[in-house]
Amino acid sequence: MTRNQLIGQIRQKKSYLCIGLDTDINKIPKHLLSSTDPVFEFNRQIINSTKDFCVSYKINTAFYEAMGLKGWESMQKTVDYIPSTHFKIADAKRGDIGNTSTQYAKAFFEKLNFDAVTIAPYMGEDSVRPFLQYEGKWAIVLGLTSNEGAKDFEFQKIGDEFLYEKVLKTVSQWGTTENLMFVIGATQASEFEKIRQIAPNHFYLVPGVGAQGGSLKEISEKAMNAECSLLVNASRAIIYASNYEDFAEEAGKIAKAYQEEMSHYIV
Amino acid sequence: MTRNQLIGQIRQKKSYLCIGLDTDINKIPKHLLSSTDPVFEFNRQIINSTKDFCVSYKINTAFYEAMGLKGWESMQKTVDYIPSTHFKIADAKRGDIGNTSTQYAKAFFEKLNFDAVTIAPYMGEDSVRPFLQYEGKWAIVLGLTSNEGAKDFEFQKIGDEFLYEKVLKTVSQWGTTENLMFVIGATQASEFEKIRQIAPNHFYLVPGVGAQGGSLKEISEKAMNAECSLLVNASRAIIYASNYEDFAEEAGKIAKAYQEEMSHYIV
Repeated sequence: MTRNQLIGQIRQKKSYLCIGLDTDINKIPKHLLSSTDPVFEFNRQIINSTKDFCVSYKINTAFYEAMGLKGWESMQKTVDYIPSTHFKIADAKRGDIGNTSTQYAKAFFEKLNFDAVTIAPYMGEDSVRPFLQYEGKWAIVLGLTSNEGAKDFEFQKIGDEFLYEKVLKTVSQWGTTENLMFVIGATQASEFEKIRQIAPNHFYLVPGVGAQGGSLKEISEKAMNAECSLLVNASRAIIYASNYEDFAEEAGKIAKAYQEEMSHYIV
Repeated sequence: MTRNQLIGQIRQKKSYLCIGLDTDINKIPKHLLSSTDPVFEFNRQIINSTKDFCVSYKINTAFYEAMGLKGWESMQKTVDYIPSTHFKIADAKRGDIGNTSTQYAKAFFEKLNFDAVTIAPYMGEDSVRPFLQYEGKWAIVLGLTSNEGAKDFEFQKIGDEFLYEKVLKTVSQWGTTENLMFVIGATQASEFEKIRQIAPNHFYLVPGVGAQGGSLKEISEKAMNAECSLLVNASRAIIYASNYEDFAEEAGKIAKAYQEEMSHYIV
């Protein structure tokens, strides 16, 4: 999906919501466990009930890998089921030496039809480049993450800037606003204005709203630009809204509430 | 596998060789393509012919993920086939917020029976901790990598030390020499003595010998300690030693040559 197509979807729906399918077989409603593929069945119903309110789905690969072969199959079916109108993110945090990153890019862009993969920047340029070689596909590189551990390295000073600022500045030069986004955690709102100065035009994938406590209002005020350029992700707050037969309906309600709030912020 | 068991294997075999199964279906001998699972068949024969000369196998998950479901199946069969005497590494470069890293640990330590997983440190402590919670299992955290991109961030100065040094010092405090190793690239030999001062007792997984150009002799002289504490990996140089019917035999010869060279260095 191109940048223009994504912005078109955001304007049409007045939503920049991404829904995280961190689907854990131990947390889904019990009545689904009798279906052939409970995880896919859960995702299918969640997608049906939320797709009008979001522009993107983010699949957290860890939850699928934890189920082995069966999980990888559920992931494949889920990616295939997501409508082509929606931006499909593999939240995989991959990154390795060049010839290995090339294989990861194949895995997520060719074998699975994702639009984007999240990438860890530690190993530098040749670990990111292979993800930037596909027309209409994206690398979403970790900038400043939402977790407590961000303080350990991301907030360490290199000269007079934090490591994460160095990462944003350096990585910006490797890609364009058409093939590169950054992960910026919702819990880091105090840094958002500075970050927009460093990378004014890139899209940010913003996790950490909901279960992790980030504020949608604050993020939107501080980080939205003229083309929106935000994808705000909520996972647990939406997909586990109810643990009963009405789980999909309740997820739809929460997604709709996010979309309505977003419609007020969107420019 | 515990540290003592691993050291025992190294002493018994006079080898600290790890063989990287970066198996690419486009690079294996053509006569294997007619078997039901060519990648597993290749690995099976490589393991048979090399197991006496190495103490560890490292599976590069990217190459398996690039083949989708079928690849994940080949990976599972390969891990199950590796003898229990050998230290089994998932070279996966994972790492995410705590609840997600917990899922990755499940994937590699419970669902697949690996002894160790490689981890990217960027996201800090809570991204590494879940891998340190298993008796006899290991997190192998990226310290200084073998690739060109190491200069982009790993060699950036934080105060008067490099980022990678900060990573080694900080991460050392999260685990012990019984559950934590570091990746140190073979191409970074000039840094090895300094690194041994920072982490004198930890095992290092050292990739980059062979195709990437690192010297086994130099690494061994500079980084071995009284308990060896090295696993030196070669992938392409061994597994693609021949592209014909004698591929396994030729791989065995190269592995044996590494083992013999190692037997001279080992203390």
